[in-house]
Amino acid sequence: MDVKMDVAALTEFLGTAFPQVADDFVVEAIAPMQATIRLKVSDAHLRPGGTVSGPSMFALADVSVYLATLAMIGPQALAVTTNISMDFMRKPASGVDLVSDTRLLKLGRQLAVGDCLIRSVGETDPVARASMTYAIPPARG
Amino acid sequence: MDVKMDVAALTEFLGTAFPQVADDFVVEAIAPMQATIRLKVSDAHLRPGGTVSGPSMFALADVSVYLATLAMIGPQALAVTTNISMDFMRKPASGVDLVSDTRLLKLGRQLAVGDCLIRSVGETDPVARASMTYAIPPARG
Amino acid sequence: MDVKMDVAALTEFLGTAFPQVADDFVVEAIAPMQATIRLKVSDAHLRPGGTVSGPSMFALADVSVYLATLAMIGPQALAVTTNISMDFMRKPASGVDLVSDTRLLKLGRQLAVGDCLIRSVGETDPVARASMTYAIPPARG
Amino acid sequence: MDVKMDVAALTEFLGTAFPQVADDFVVEAIAPMQATIRLKVSDAHLRPGGTVSGPSMFALADVSVYLATLAMIGPQALAVTTNISMDFMRKPASGVDLVSDTRLLKLGRQLAVGDCLIRSVGETDPVARASMTYAIPPARG
Repeated sequence: MDVKMDVAALTEFLGTAFPQVADDFVVEAIAPMQATIRLKVSDAHLRPGGTVSGPSMFALADVSVYLATLAMIGPQALAVTTNISMDFMRKPASGVDLVSDTRLLKLGRQLAVGDCLIRSVGETDPVARASMTYAIPPARG
Repeated sequence: MDVKMDVAALTEFLGTAFPQVADDFVVEAIAPMQATIRLKVSDAHLRPGGTVSGPSMFALADVSVYLATLAMIGPQALAVTTNISMDFMRKPASGVDLVSDTRLLKLGRQLAVGDCLIRSVGETDPVARASMTYAIPPARG
Repeated sequence: MDVKMDVAALTEFLGTAFPQVADDFVVEAIAPMQATIRLKVSDAHLRPGGTVSGPSMFALADVSVYLATLAMIGPQALAVTTNISMDFMRKPASGVDLVSDTRLLKLGRQLAVGDCLIRSVGETDPVARASMTYAIPPARG
Repeated sequence: MDVKMDVAALTEFLGTAFPQVADDFVVEAIAPMQATIRLKVSDAHLRPGGTVSGPSMFALADVSVYLATLAMIGPQALAVTTNISMDFMRKPASGVDLVSDTRLLKLGRQLAVGDCLIRSVGETDPVARASMTYAIPPARG
């Protein structure tokens, strides 16, 4: 099963459909059922002490599984997150971006399920783990 | 078991410890093992179509269980979120704030567990459900 | 919205559709979007030390949200669990049954979401918390 | 970091500490921060239609992360599950065992976090995904 959207197409889609947050993310790599997405960490993502905030990591996980899904099914601005589970395991390294390695585990007609490991750039131990479910609208393009 | 911090004390703590986000939240009510927290929805929390973003709801759930915990144990800026699970069930009503009704289910020496229902102000059906675990540092004041 | 199946109807359904486990559970009370289900704890549910096993609590949560859903939509042996999240918070009391207080938070065409608190009979503090999602098959009677 | 318990040591531990369920599981492979565990599917694990039950998959995930943790820290019958999140994605193949590929993502002093993919033997698509947290008692060893 080939991808329907590549790095360039997903980057353009992100900028058009989610202009408020598109500048925060870089689509680094796309492969069938896989995506690598980077969060460009800026002051807006930090908590006191320099830690990346939980909501920022949530946003990275959310956009990662969403883009991995769109890569397979084509542009669907309406797919919605129905469930997320996250474990926060380590403090992110200070002053560096976060990268999410994402895999789709299921791509059904109604539901897509994926998980991701989030790491600080240059580190091997994961900062956080997330799994997400997306509901795909019945009538899709 | 009485609360150690009331609405005024938690509001002041929030402003001091998390100045970046303190203006987003209102501590509406505190009772033993319970908290009601409101997210003042502004443009920064919205997605295209006027829906409140997932990360904004995550932030509301996160701060709600955190404040419910601090109300019981006193100011602990270091308690950290270790796990969150959320279900997103309905689209929030447009142009109104969100309220989180939160209850602590466990307050142990090492872990606190709570859950919350998030509703649009004026609605009864919940928009989202969250459960969270906080790790409480061994040496606490 | 009234219930389509009451305690008697759900008890009969359980015995017919799930004869292997029906004897483990008692349907104690049903109300719109709510159910109270009891696990009759026997040796088969115990771990060394007399603790009720995790899988037994999972089974109680699973059947509780399932029955709360069926009470509203009628007998649907095909509805399937798609997601569960559980927090185990306290050791169950020894030698007593467990009761699950369950509420449906969403009952959509495709998905039902519910959560439950599990307590030892005679205790007030919850032993465990669970939230579950059920997928409801498209063609339903 | 080497393993403290190998396949033989974990198999013996399982039989001694959890005699009720030890016969259900086979410790297939152990490596640092990794484990492969097989559930020997029998009639007791099945639901009508031949599907492996949710509680049986829960039990497999639970024992997998537990054994992966013990492999690293040595025998600790007291470590307890505090959280689990599972997604059920496909119907298991009929009449074959299930295998859990497990990795530890964090092994801290207080908490261990792991996840696993569960597949039917001979299949590549996962049947279920689980992530779990274990609390490790303060006084160990």
